[in-house]
Amino acid sequence: MQFVKNNIKDTEVIVRGIELSSLAAGIRYKDRLDLCLIKIKGLSNSAVRFTSNRFPAAPIIISKKHLNKKEPKYLLINAGNANAATGQKGENDTTDICRKISKLAGCEIEEVLMFSTGVIGELLPANKIISCLPKLFETSTQTGWREAAKAIMTTDTFPKISLKEFQLDGQKYSLVGICKGSGMIQPKMATMLAFVATDLPLSRKALDVISEAALSESFNKITVDGETSTNDSFVLISTNSENTSLLDIDDPSFSLVKSLISECCKELAIDIVKDGEGATKLVNIRVNGAESDEEAKLIASSIANSLLVKTAIFAEDPNWGRIFSAIGASGAENIKQDKIDIFIGGIRICNHGKGVEDLDELEVISAMKLRNFDILVELNIGSFSADTWTCDLSYDYIKINAEYRS
Amino acid sequence: MQFVKNNIKDTEVIVRGIELSSLAAGIRYKDRLDLCLIKIKGLSNSAVRFTSNRFPAAPIIISKKHLNKKEPKYLLINAGNANAATGQKGENDTTDICRKISKLAGCEIEEVLMFSTGVIGELLPANKIISCLPKLFETSTQTGWREAAKAIMTTDTFPKISLKEFQLDGQKYSLVGICKGSGMIQPKMATMLAFVATDLPLSRKALDVISEAALSESFNKITVDGETSTNDSFVLISTNSENTSLLDIDDPSFSLVKSLISECCKELAIDIVKDGEGATKLVNIRVNGAESDEEAKLIASSIANSLLVKTAIFAEDPNWGRIFSAIGASGAENIKQDKIDIFIGGIRICNHGKGVEDLDELEVISAMKLRNFDILVELNIGSFSADTWTCDLSYDYIKINAEYRS
Repeated sequence: MQFVKNNIKDTEVIVRGIELSSLAAGIRYKDRLDLCLIKIKGLSNSAVRFTSNRFPAAPIIISKKHLNKKEPKYLLINAGNANAATGQKGENDTTDICRKISKLAGCEIEEVLMFSTGVIGELLPANKIISCLPKLFETSTQTGWREAAKAIMTTDTFPKISLKEFQLDGQKYSLVGICKGSGMIQPKMATMLAFVATDLPLSRKALDVISEAALSESFNKITVDGETSTNDSFVLISTNSENTSLLDIDDPSFSLVKSLISECCKELAIDIVKDGEGATKLVNIRVNGAESDEEAKLIASSIANSLLVKTAIFAEDPNWGRIFSAIGASGAENIKQDKIDIFIGGIRICNHGKGVEDLDELEVISAMKLRNFDILVELNIGSFSADTWTCDLSYDYIKINAEYRS
Repeated sequence: MQFVKNNIKDTEVIVRGIELSSLAAGIRYKDRLDLCLIKIKGLSNSAVRFTSNRFPAAPIIISKKHLNKKEPKYLLINAGNANAATGQKGENDTTDICRKISKLAGCEIEEVLMFSTGVIGELLPANKIISCLPKLFETSTQTGWREAAKAIMTTDTFPKISLKEFQLDGQKYSLVGICKGSGMIQPKMATMLAFVATDLPLSRKALDVISEAALSESFNKITVDGETSTNDSFVLISTNSENTSLLDIDDPSFSLVKSLISECCKELAIDIVKDGEGATKLVNIRVNGAESDEEAKLIASSIANSLLVKTAIFAEDPNWGRIFSAIGASGAENIKQDKIDIFIGGIRICNHGKGVEDLDELEVISAMKLRNFDILVELNIGSFSADTWTCDLSYDYIKINAEYRS
């Protein structure tokens, strides 16, 4: 595999077989893009993952049923209303919208999926959405990714998009991902809304393996506020518009393709944490030397979700005692306090469970003044590691979530 | 059992067999009470419970060793420094202090326990504390409870004390509890620091049964920020200074005594949430109709610790979708979204998983404007219940934890 361009931030990239259109339907706010249609033309394979929240939103309930029967060809995404906790009416609204799309497209209703994000517990303005569908069909374009990334935003402050081009056996392919998310972020199995597409034809098995790997390396590693939403969804689409052979898991390029897609997902996931509600810092928490994978993850998550750690990060205060306490309170059992080393921004601040003598605290504060830095915990027990990205907890998180209904 | 007085808020109560003294040792701040000695005279039984944080502080490590050998007679408590994450030096400091107390008291070192609260990761100013010990011995008094409640405070804004007098078989007894706590509060097995004493002579078995019951009804039911501290400790002392017979679990009055002590602990625990860092609201979360006790607790805890629920409470915003999402994300498996009812301040706001039609939202907002209100979730699945107390998440929580090192 040869990369043509990586991280093409400023040019438009198309994925053969995908068209998109976006418009402002006025679902929650006026004159703001909030409705997006993704068309998958020709052959394709898709992997779709949904939230592990036991109360999935109506569009997820309906989309799961459709996925059981057909390969998806039309994805409709709305922002501003999650259509969650809306009972049978919410499901009926979703079905009505999918049915209308299937009529306009001349496809079966099971080939249509719907995704919603926004406030929970309010009925979806289904008629408003249905009345916009003809226009969405008229305006679809291969270059609509950037508009789509905007149309799915809620409290996000910037659109999240990852663009890559690569070459395999002399043929050029694209990989594009978009996602949204800012609050209610601690995805489990998938994140808020993420749509990743490539025109490299992948087998079903390859897609599934890549999805699991990419999720575990990206969206399942982030937290803003420890909240797992009712609407989290992740879609990975591989188009095959020219009906060529599919790349499978035994292909020599498979692991490179997997890494590339994981990297795309990781970029999107990190963008979510960067754009965490009220966030001023992006922090990578890394835990090494755990007795098991599970304990490494428990500890990383405990630190990443600790309100006291997050407020200390906001304050640029190297108060490592809070990290230490979060490790002890994590639920991990095979840990010893006199073996713990903690590093902030590469500087050792806790040595074998106690503060480093003669520490230059100002140096650590300088490291914490950066927008991005790392917290590393060495447990010195076993050989398992985990890492996670988190952000700080600031006044603005309270402001965003106390002053506006989201 | 006959109550003489309950909740005696403004008079001094003594517990026969207990003397206390407090002073300002200058551990972290000047001229602020921060050191307290509790003497237990004559016969006594005590039940002591410590944090489940896997990294207990040095005073807990040492106190556990002492407890294994002797019944405690002297408790020294300091605020301003947790003596946690201080390694062997922290343990040596604790031992030195206990040894000095044993010399001054003429008792064995194992009869001395120490409790510390405050910043984690800094060495205890042991010499400062040791130099204050003679004065603590000189000034001890039976009426020192209120001063003691002040001396153990850190970010607390008011001292927490519960006073009760009761009569049993014509004999008058007292029950007094003090505790501290405001941040780093989600005790597991015990809370920050709580000391409860009665001069009703109780058997060891009775004390143990009462401790477990009282803890599960009080300190183990509260959360401020989901953080389990390194220093949580709970002490229940039953003095027997006149060497009379002990009340055991088969005594007809046992369950009344148990209820009384539970009530005392519950009052103290609720005071901690009321005084939660930055808290403006005290909210009782009740979950009914769960399939199991464990699931009821999981759900109550998920709601009580949800940052989105807590910011909505701060905002007096009846955004029940956040409660709904927290139930779904709790990890409980035997729940159905179309069976969920949610009530805020007694007003039904979610009916069978969807919003109540024709809801008078202003009425719910009025209920949320109160300092204290309830959130009730009916799962309508089984017959298990759980409840918990939480507070809101306000700008001041960020301020307290970002602007000061605690």
